Amino acid sequence: MAKSKFEYVRLFETEDRCLPNSWIVVRVDGKGFHKFSTEHDYEKPNDMRALSLMNKAAASVMEEFKDICLAYGQSDEYSFVFRKETQVYSRRSAKLSTNVCSLFTSAFVYYWSEHFPSSKPLYPPVFDGRTVLYPSNQNIRDYLSWRQADCHINNLYNTTFWALILKAGLTPGEAEQKLKGTLSGDKNEILFSQFSINYNKEPEMLRKGTILVRRKVPVALPDGSGTREKSQVIQLHTDVIGDEFWNENNHLLTIS
Amino acid sequence: MAKSKFEYVRLFETEDRCLPNSWIVVRVDGKGFHKFSTEHDYEKPNDMRALSLMNKAAASVMEEFKDICLAYGQSDEYSFVFRKETQVYSRRSAKLSTNVCSLFTSAFVYYWSEHFPSSKPLYPPVFDGRTVLYPSNQNIRDYLSWRQADCHINNLYNTTFWALILKAGLTPGEAEQKLKGTLSGDKNEILFSQFSINYNKEPEMLRKGTILVRRKVPVALPDGSGTREKSQVIQLHTDVIGDEFWNENNHLLTIS
Amino acid sequence: MAKSKFEYVRLFETEDRCLPNSWIVVRVDGKGFHKFSTEHDYEKPNDMRALSLMNKAAASVMEEFKDICLAYGQSDEYSFVFRKETQVYSRRSAKLSTNVCSLFTSAFVYYWSEHFPSSKPLYPPVFDGRTVLYPSNQNIRDYLSWRQADCHINNLYNTTFWALILKAGLTPGEAEQKLKGTLSGDKNEILFSQFSINYNKEPEMLRKGTILVRRKVPVALPDGSGTREKSQVIQLHTDVIGDEFWNENNHLLTIS
Amino acid sequence: MAKSKFEYVRLFETEDRCLPNSWIVVRVDGKGFHKFSTEHDYEKPNDMRALSLMNKAAASVMEEFKDICLAYGQSDEYSFVFRKETQVYSRRSAKLSTNVCSLFTSAFVYYWSEHFPSSKPLYPPVFDGRTVLYPSNQNIRDYLSWRQADCHINNLYNTTFWALILKAGLTPGEAEQKLKGTLSGDKNEILFSQFSINYNKEPEMLRKGTILVRRKVPVALPDGSGTREKSQVIQLHTDVIGDEFWNENNHLLTIS
Repeated sequence: MAKSKFEYVRLFETEDRCLPNSWIVVRVDGKGFHKFSTEHDYEKPNDMRALSLMNKAAASVMEEFKDICLAYGQSDEYSFVFRKETQVYSRRSAKLSTNVCSLFTSAFVYYWSEHFPSSKPLYPPVFDGRTVLYPSNQNIRDYLSWRQADCHINNLYNTTFWALILKAGLTPGEAEQKLKGTLSGDKNEILFSQFSINYNKEPEMLRKGTILVRRKVPVALPDGSGTREKSQVIQLHTDVIGDEFWNENNHLLTIS
Repeated sequence: MAKSKFEYVRLFETEDRCLPNSWIVVRVDGKGFHKFSTEHDYEKPNDMRALSLMNKAAASVMEEFKDICLAYGQSDEYSFVFRKETQVYSRRSAKLSTNVCSLFTSAFVYYWSEHFPSSKPLYPPVFDGRTVLYPSNQNIRDYLSWRQADCHINNLYNTTFWALILKAGLTPGEAEQKLKGTLSGDKNEILFSQFSINYNKEPEMLRKGTILVRRKVPVALPDGSGTREKSQVIQLHTDVIGDEFWNENNHLLTIS
Repeated sequence: MAKSKFEYVRLFETEDRCLPNSWIVVRVDGKGFHKFSTEHDYEKPNDMRALSLMNKAAASVMEEFKDICLAYGQSDEYSFVFRKETQVYSRRSAKLSTNVCSLFTSAFVYYWSEHFPSSKPLYPPVFDGRTVLYPSNQNIRDYLSWRQADCHINNLYNTTFWALILKAGLTPGEAEQKLKGTLSGDKNEILFSQFSINYNKEPEMLRKGTILVRRKVPVALPDGSGTREKSQVIQLHTDVIGDEFWNENNHLLTIS
Repeated sequence: MAKSKFEYVRLFETEDRCLPNSWIVVRVDGKGFHKFSTEHDYEKPNDMRALSLMNKAAASVMEEFKDICLAYGQSDEYSFVFRKETQVYSRRSAKLSTNVCSLFTSAFVYYWSEHFPSSKPLYPPVFDGRTVLYPSNQNIRDYLSWRQADCHINNLYNTTFWALILKAGLTPGEAEQKLKGTLSGDKNEILFSQFSINYNKEPEMLRKGTILVRRKVPVALPDGSGTREKSQVIQLHTDVIGDEFWNENNHLLTIS
């Protein structure tokens, strides 16, 4: 079609290709989710419906972008790891972050009712997104370790904080005061001695967050004559800080 | 809270602040909306429900970001113009594009049922986003002119194309063939002579797209004692290529 | 010629085009010139040989890059202003900064002996460079005003500081102590009452720095039959903070 | 000192830090050196004075920047490899490229007379510079292999081209025509059969280019009591495409 004399404004768009041969992470983060979770009566310290909705939204992203080899989520955030060699959107940073962020948000609203059947969101929830590059395998492992360590620290705090409020009747201010300056061991001790909670027996999804990876699973052939392998997104709630996960999933860090 | 030894990975995040004193445009674009519109039985050449949903989603973005002074939408795209001096998110490019894009997407899904009451989307719709800078008032005007010229060119084509199919019974291939190489005048002539359609009488929203601006409107005081002024987002479907709109809205291009 | 299998590494180079329709400034700055000036016996507070060498090096840059419309220098720095529309090196930021910086450095060493006839530099002097964008005419004027105000502040300080040392016999430490917390008026007063120096009568090149612009000047035709106009780089030492300079040189800010 | 109201223009400077944990290469390239070499009577196909001057300039850069672990030069270009972890100039891209480029240029002019004793350059020579990142050890090896393969291809061509001109009396046009479409083997054959030149016996500096690395060398103690180790920049003209060099210098690719 004919081009207008205004077409020149396209030249103001910038090139933003990611450095080749680097891991690309797109992380989405809930915007104002402290307030959002209160307004939508999320259970404290963790709301299983909200977490399963997050996981569902993340799985939707992985179904769409086959070059995401792993995703990690906790609380109101999710990180998507594109394989080093991906050429999706020519590795353009903004294309990657906005597409992932938009699809995640869209799926979060779309599947809301499956996880919160009795209510509609009070307003459209928002997630921001960012693209970050990690050059080496060690860097990407450390990135994921960073998020999982964050999950652990926050969840231990929140579990103790809410036990003090919901079970011991403290006000939020009193609970905060009580936990000020405590170490992990102190919180474990409070949980155990005061509430008979063995923190290490808490659900792994809460303590470790959720890892999404692809697995070949056998699916029955339509004619009943046997099975074939199909790639499927599965959830894990395992440790990614140590070596075991990476040894078991060594294809993730191997350059094809 | 305690910081982990993995914290260093934050240093891999990059700074992406937009040049100061420049217009910031965030444009969102439907991903695969040709297919999406077909699968969701959008009326051709234009679906008023879809356009009003786009306008609703865009208005939600403007309600949230007070520094967006104008938005322009047509078809499956919307451009949001932040005022030159905005400091929202410290002018960080990815923050701006992902937040706008996420909120737009979220509102699109959230308000879907108000505009398409009888159906649910078949899957979560996606919009991508990008941030573009325009240094001068002429540049930002030319940007908006570019989009509106694009709206005109596409809508004239689509109106004629679908008239040939829906009213003259041509196949899409035949309609495409017939329009190949035609100029605007030719298409106007086909519409008028063959379908008695005076293109210039078509709804302005279709020919010009939608401009969202803020206007002070009087609202009644609760005690009935009079009115007060309130800023409100209003829709226009007027020409932004000529000077008239800008003369009437000269506050838009004035630096505060 | 044949391409090697290693050619792929070119893809790691990044695009760094400057935003169109913006003023491009490349500023070069002497690296470690406090030390360099001492080691090369620069006269204090100002060395006219060094300043004229700086101006010569800057003029060499302007002779080479016709799209530099103005340059401003003071002390060991020089700023080169490319016209808004320049397409030199496709506006690539690193190309601009490294070429300007390299030519400036090269000319500084090359022409050294013309300005310091009796000595050779003790080692190769170095200048760093940077590219900065300014969208509006006001911004580029403010940029130049910033550098000229800096020139004024530093030169007034240095003139007083060195008068205290060279004429009143203070040590550098004592001079520094004496000037601590003084305002411009105080320094003017010290210069006048103690050294009979009227600062406003000091050479303009020292108080204002040097502006390089192009002027059409008449040059004699080889056959003696008259003159023709030729563009030439000339030096000014005038105020660029007020309006007068810009009114007299209004072609500089007019978009062609 | 007092800040002026123009100070705000500093905010227009952009952050350009290189991704951490990546190899940083700064490559400088002669600007218009085809013309420069002709005007300065460089011997063809290679001028040993020019190459030794390039090596001297490069060594000056390595003496200054201790974080450059290796440099590679050929023809009118030199690549400087900063170790992955370098924090020089906070890894700011423009700072690195302009400083290296300025020092290289400065040293080239400064040391000119040591290598071309009988003449002065006709005008200040210029080198441009660029910063490129390479995430992995394989990438940086491939980068250097790319430059060395380029050296080989060009030198074989130039050696044959100039033999045809200088020894067989062809015009440049005729020599070009004769070499069109020839492979390496063809050029080796021309050199051997027509000029009795065994290309593989040509000086390694011409065939392989120059690698600069640091080596601990023993230096005599002033009191004659023995020696101590000192780091020194040395020249090699060896193959860097194969594994041997890297095995012998395996500290280069080891992360400290």
